[in-house]
Amino acid sequence: MAYKDEQLNEEKVFKDPVHRYVHVKDRVIWDLISAAEFQRLRRIKQLGTSYLTFHGAEHSRFNHSLGVYEIVRRILFNFEGREHWNKEQRLLCLCAALLHDLGHGPFSHSFEKVFKLDHEEFTRKIILGNTEVNHILQRVDKGFPQKVADVINKTYEDKLVISLISSQIDADRMDYLQRDAYFTGVSYGHFDMERILRVMRPLEDQVVIKSSGMHAVEDYIMSRYQMYWQVYFHPVSRSAEVILSKILHRAKDLYQQDYTFSLKPTHFLSFFTGDVSLEDYLRLDESIVLYYFQMWADEADPILSDLCVRFTNRKLFKYIEFNPNLQMEEWMELYSLFEKAGMDPEYYLVVDSSSDLPYDFYRPGEEGERLPIHLLMPNQELKELSRQSDIVESISGKKRTDHKLYFPMDFVEALPDDEPEKARIETLLGLSQEK
Amino acid sequence: MAYKDEQLNEEKVFKDPVHRYVHVKDRVIWDLISAAEFQRLRRIKQLGTSYLTFHGAEHSRFNHSLGVYEIVRRILFNFEGREHWNKEQRLLCLCAALLHDLGHGPFSHSFEKVFKLDHEEFTRKIILGNTEVNHILQRVDKGFPQKVADVINKTYEDKLVISLISSQIDADRMDYLQRDAYFTGVSYGHFDMERILRVMRPLEDQVVIKSSGMHAVEDYIMSRYQMYWQVYFHPVSRSAEVILSKILHRAKDLYQQDYTFSLKPTHFLSFFTGDVSLEDYLRLDESIVLYYFQMWADEADPILSDLCVRFTNRKLFKYIEFNPNLQMEEWMELYSLFEKAGMDPEYYLVVDSSSDLPYDFYRPGEEGERLPIHLLMPNQELKELSRQSDIVESISGKKRTDHKLYFPMDFVEALPDDEPEKARIETLLGLSQEK
Amino acid sequence: MAYKDEQLNEEKVFKDPVHRYVHVKDRVIWDLISAAEFQRLRRIKQLGTSYLTFHGAEHSRFNHSLGVYEIVRRILFNFEGREHWNKEQRLLCLCAALLHDLGHGPFSHSFEKVFKLDHEEFTRKIILGNTEVNHILQRVDKGFPQKVADVINKTYEDKLVISLISSQIDADRMDYLQRDAYFTGVSYGHFDMERILRVMRPLEDQVVIKSSGMHAVEDYIMSRYQMYWQVYFHPVSRSAEVILSKILHRAKDLYQQDYTFSLKPTHFLSFFTGDVSLEDYLRLDESIVLYYFQMWADEADPILSDLCVRFTNRKLFKYIEFNPNLQMEEWMELYSLFEKAGMDPEYYLVVDSSSDLPYDFYRPGEEGERLPIHLLMPNQELKELSRQSDIVESISGKKRTDHKLYFPMDFVEALPDDEPEKARIETLLGLSQEK
Amino acid sequence: MAYKDEQLNEEKVFKDPVHRYVHVKDRVIWDLISAAEFQRLRRIKQLGTSYLTFHGAEHSRFNHSLGVYEIVRRILFNFEGREHWNKEQRLLCLCAALLHDLGHGPFSHSFEKVFKLDHEEFTRKIILGNTEVNHILQRVDKGFPQKVADVINKTYEDKLVISLISSQIDADRMDYLQRDAYFTGVSYGHFDMERILRVMRPLEDQVVIKSSGMHAVEDYIMSRYQMYWQVYFHPVSRSAEVILSKILHRAKDLYQQDYTFSLKPTHFLSFFTGDVSLEDYLRLDESIVLYYFQMWADEADPILSDLCVRFTNRKLFKYIEFNPNLQMEEWMELYSLFEKAGMDPEYYLVVDSSSDLPYDFYRPGEEGERLPIHLLMPNQELKELSRQSDIVESISGKKRTDHKLYFPMDFVEALPDDEPEKARIETLLGLSQEK
Repeated sequence: MAYKDEQLNEEKVFKDPVHRYVHVKDRVIWDLISAAEFQRLRRIKQLGTSYLTFHGAEHSRFNHSLGVYEIVRRILFNFEGREHWNKEQRLLCLCAALLHDLGHGPFSHSFEKVFKLDHEEFTRKIILGNTEVNHILQRVDKGFPQKVADVINKTYEDKLVISLISSQIDADRMDYLQRDAYFTGVSYGHFDMERILRVMRPLEDQVVIKSSGMHAVEDYIMSRYQMYWQVYFHPVSRSAEVILSKILHRAKDLYQQDYTFSLKPTHFLSFFTGDVSLEDYLRLDESIVLYYFQMWADEADPILSDLCVRFTNRKLFKYIEFNPNLQMEEWMELYSLFEKAGMDPEYYLVVDSSSDLPYDFYRPGEEGERLPIHLLMPNQELKELSRQSDIVESISGKKRTDHKLYFPMDFVEALPDDEPEKARIETLLGLSQEK
Repeated sequence: MAYKDEQLNEEKVFKDPVHRYVHVKDRVIWDLISAAEFQRLRRIKQLGTSYLTFHGAEHSRFNHSLGVYEIVRRILFNFEGREHWNKEQRLLCLCAALLHDLGHGPFSHSFEKVFKLDHEEFTRKIILGNTEVNHILQRVDKGFPQKVADVINKTYEDKLVISLISSQIDADRMDYLQRDAYFTGVSYGHFDMERILRVMRPLEDQVVIKSSGMHAVEDYIMSRYQMYWQVYFHPVSRSAEVILSKILHRAKDLYQQDYTFSLKPTHFLSFFTGDVSLEDYLRLDESIVLYYFQMWADEADPILSDLCVRFTNRKLFKYIEFNPNLQMEEWMELYSLFEKAGMDPEYYLVVDSSSDLPYDFYRPGEEGERLPIHLLMPNQELKELSRQSDIVESISGKKRTDHKLYFPMDFVEALPDDEPEKARIETLLGLSQEK
Repeated sequence: MAYKDEQLNEEKVFKDPVHRYVHVKDRVIWDLISAAEFQRLRRIKQLGTSYLTFHGAEHSRFNHSLGVYEIVRRILFNFEGREHWNKEQRLLCLCAALLHDLGHGPFSHSFEKVFKLDHEEFTRKIILGNTEVNHILQRVDKGFPQKVADVINKTYEDKLVISLISSQIDADRMDYLQRDAYFTGVSYGHFDMERILRVMRPLEDQVVIKSSGMHAVEDYIMSRYQMYWQVYFHPVSRSAEVILSKILHRAKDLYQQDYTFSLKPTHFLSFFTGDVSLEDYLRLDESIVLYYFQMWADEADPILSDLCVRFTNRKLFKYIEFNPNLQMEEWMELYSLFEKAGMDPEYYLVVDSSSDLPYDFYRPGEEGERLPIHLLMPNQELKELSRQSDIVESISGKKRTDHKLYFPMDFVEALPDDEPEKARIETLLGLSQEK
Repeated sequence: MAYKDEQLNEEKVFKDPVHRYVHVKDRVIWDLISAAEFQRLRRIKQLGTSYLTFHGAEHSRFNHSLGVYEIVRRILFNFEGREHWNKEQRLLCLCAALLHDLGHGPFSHSFEKVFKLDHEEFTRKIILGNTEVNHILQRVDKGFPQKVADVINKTYEDKLVISLISSQIDADRMDYLQRDAYFTGVSYGHFDMERILRVMRPLEDQVVIKSSGMHAVEDYIMSRYQMYWQVYFHPVSRSAEVILSKILHRAKDLYQQDYTFSLKPTHFLSFFTGDVSLEDYLRLDESIVLYYFQMWADEADPILSDLCVRFTNRKLFKYIEFNPNLQMEEWMELYSLFEKAGMDPEYYLVVDSSSDLPYDFYRPGEEGERLPIHLLMPNQELKELSRQSDIVESISGKKRTDHKLYFPMDFVEALPDDEPEKARIETLLGLSQEK
């Protein structure tokens, strides 16, 4: 039997808290799960620094990747025998679902910003490079790795396949909303996925939703909205993210200044020089990063050391609402007061805006964006969701930006009361009223 | 106001998937949670290697410790105003609950066995040594750290206080059963904790259960039984545990043989020499251990390297039921066949028995064991649970041992078919029939 | 001890699937629950005819009334010791919560419409009349029954008390959304009530919500929206409701036409004549109504008999979207075609609009309506919810009416194919295309 | 297409709180659900009088019957293509599952005892008699009704089919445990049905369980045990049951004594005379019974009237543990004291033993009992469950009888204190100590 058609003797199941069981029957899927690059996802948290806000959010990307695979498996089970559905695409869809996040590194968001990396590019490299995953996919067919990469890259010719993995209501989002809600313990994130799966229909170039299922989709969109504001953009997690970014910045700066590290940052060298090989990338997971942070806590450089202690022991920055219309003058004053007080403002006075984050709870039809959700009306017409639903319309495409200013409250408080900067800093930060 | 009575301005809450919210009002508790030694528990998994079997089981001991605190908080809330309950003990109970697992290290079970450590001893050392936790406790009262240590150590004079933290139905067990069930996703582990809390009554020297709540307690005992066999003793997790132990053994052996590591095992040195300081102990968390395992995968020693690759990429040993009555002769033969085939049996042929593990789903009255569960009958008499409950009686004190033999199936399969040992090894392992 | 302060020896608990336990400690509450008029609520379904659509929705108003009581109990527990909260009002709030639905009759909505009754009036009559409930309340204080009635009637002087029982986010709504979701099994209806209870604050004349809880409130509003469209306005339940109303109409008409019933409709006489005494009202519960429907199925009058068979055996009317702009001409034609075909259009061609139903998922500030939701901002200002929340704004006050036309498809299909009316009826009803 | 193979155009789903959705594709099933005799099950509560203890337990046998059907549907879906499974039996299994409880009457247990009826006999009569259900089944095949009746009657030749519907681990039990737990809200009743369904295997003459699923089955058995003692045998529900039985007894006695009822008990006549026709039986549902009880509350006979008031308004009997070894003398004395005090002991002093109830949480191999559970061992051997499982063994076949004495505490308390019987009655009932 061809490798692509090989089935396990006995179906394997993974106990999954969200979908109850993840079922694997295909030999290819089983082999991919066992590949080193896929197992590596166990060492990368799904929600980055959110576990410092929601202590339950310690789950990994391995967890989520299995979930996305399982949802696609169920969708395709429902598609069997339907018009427009080409069952030859089944294995391709399953592989793309399983592997779509393969290129994520530790604390992806910060790493990508600081080191100018793109996890999607690394997903492609892992799939196409000299890896266990690639060898498995090649056994299916020489051209198969490229197909999988194309689906994940949204350049594959069959748009229906892409829309399963990447659209406004794809398996990725359906899994992470439910999973992140489950592990954080928040009451948002519930929607009737079973119903959504039942009303999904394959068309020529996309998956659509029977209009009778509109309310279930509204519920899903609302879940997303709530999860963004309640979980993903939580200011405490962002505070940890700010510190994390500043650690990476500082380490890079020190390296570029020829600072001598007591522990040579072997794993980071190519990140600092901007020349990261696939092998380097794969070696860096969150246990490695946390090891370095713990080592760097003992470095001579006071900034690097302080920031690492903060991250490791969760001594985070405090935050206040930041008025983006603050007079340039006042901002300059604050900045120089921090300098004078010995708190390098580059590292200790940080504005962070949530709109930098992937704010996409629903944006129909923007250039280059994920496919919008189309409803299939009883008369077989298609209508874009936000045209039919008041609720979705109300939150579509609105850019809600939230600016916060992060700083080390403990340092400010520790300034001697007779130091003239202290009072002024407190005034400018609006801390005086609070007392 | 005395530090011990200080309350936060506004109650703090942690969103908890198991108890919905963990509530903190006491300044002392809040400070303890923020202490570096407590935050360290975030980097130690509650269930050790179980995440390699149940992918959801990635939760930390931080998670669990908060949960135990919350349960004790609720119990004490119910105790308020009851006879026998001395509210002066409240803060002591809460601190002991929060800190009872503070001394756990990475993958505790294996580390304790290989390096002959005792996590309870380290809990004491952290509480009594020069640590953030100790300083906070001292602020309550000079003698307070010792009291907390005594409660955890079960030597405190007030046995009622001890029984909240450590008995057959303490807050520790009630939290971990529910929490481990939640994160693994298994359907066991549910019992009506709210009812149990309602029927708990303080007596002079122990917490007892009103007899009307017996069935809820039976359910709890059954949960425990099922969790042991379905989760805690799962043979796949034990396979990972076997490999982990063998890595530690090998590293120690190499060190003692003056092997030159390419990466000097700084963090491990005092573990190898058996002279672990508190500081050394606290520095070793699971991210550090995983860092070393990844480094050691590149070591020249083939055994250390192989075992580390196995652990990191989850290439585990397979297992078969091991017949402990196997003829010594056959066992010797198997052992020497492994040697001949180049698989050092010391590392590649391992018998593991579940009875080595803390098998205690219910043992009333054994020497030195946790207090049994007493029911408070309507006539105010006390009866030990297993005398009243058929079900509990049926599983009490039975030692059910399960022996398994672990070995690298991939190595056996990779032996050349014409190698004479292969067939015989397969016969002795009972693999031939399976083909 | 005064009756109003009497406590039960031991707290009583009711196992409740939604709130886990309902706790009763006050003697007055216990006595009220045992009163005949309260027990009668067991024989009246919470969701009227919805059980014919959602088979799980068989729960009674007894169920819900206990739930509302429990929520208010928990709110007041949180209010203890807060400014603005007068604990003297506690028992009044609990009684009003428990009794707020006491005047509901069987299938209230239809009965009220057909017989021009008002359940709120009967709630007052039961509380103030010669009933067990009244006698219990009188024991608290002669004027107490009137106070309870005033709170339910929203005329009580203390507006804070009223807002607990009756506002846009009162205990009534919070219970029914969760309860109806639980029993129907739909995935809507979940919101974080525990959080909402935590952020409720008593002010002088209303309960407000701390602004940090806005998202939890949004979730609650969305639940309500979804429950209305998915459950409460479900067209199949409305079909049953249409038939029910028509049965009552028919029986009343027959009575007025001096028709001789084989079973004298003793229980209904005063309803037919519009002179319903409190005693008559209390005697009519859903088992009585179902008894009559079953008896009337054997009546000589074909319409009454047919409708009763339909209701009893769930042979409901089918429905189509009704275009309210249908040409009067066409409507007249359809009407007379039904007449010709022997299907009295008065009973067999029914337009039903959901806007007739209590459509109130959020209407701030309308005359005579429930109090809107106010957020308490950090600066202590109050802001009306829909001014702060895009989502709530998007669905506020919109009147979304949904018109459906109900008719007996089986009768239409049973018309002989050569009957000229048949084809034309099918065309006008838009049935022909469907074939 | 043959009627038996007809499929609905679009699958119909029922929203079900326990199984999420009940799926119907077969025309035959759809028609059976719509049959009057099946709809009648909506008017019969699944748990009889338990709703007077657990207010959530208001669900009907309609509810449960759909659930059993759904479970069998899922089992057969898993069986597809397996050896031993004859797919020709599929429709038969589904029909038998759906209809297995069709003959239940109102408050079956009491009715059966008082009037010496057997609901299983009526199930057969409905299936084989002149009913809508029978006509539907006949359309499948003339002999089909008999086959369905045989399966339910356990006389069908294919024992595998029977074991799906009726064994120690059949779809009936799996549904009611979960459903009754859901509606009462108790925390028992959970087990991993999905896993059990996955390990069920068809053999020649029974369904067996792969031994790897033993723990899931243990959990199911334990659920059953807990549900019996916590829910099904709850003494308060039994108190209501006692009153119900006594009402029926009294009405029958009065009828036999030629008492003149103000409301002629038309529906009951044939029950009194012991000659119940199928038509009579089908007309009697719980709304009819409750109607009579409400009417009889106004009857002249003080006993009938009192008991009916008690049942309607939930003024139940109190209970004490009854010592079955009570000296005959004392019992005679109590009996005659009740008589003297004007409380007819026939109706007001009732011993009820739980062992009268269907106590079967696990009895392997008893004559005429349901099939025991067999485990399929890896070597293909079969082993009876209680031989493999300590827990199951511990509760198997044990007859645990619980005797209670029910009486009207309010009457006893209302006896004048100077009446000499009072003190003695209180002593004999053990009430004096309690004061």
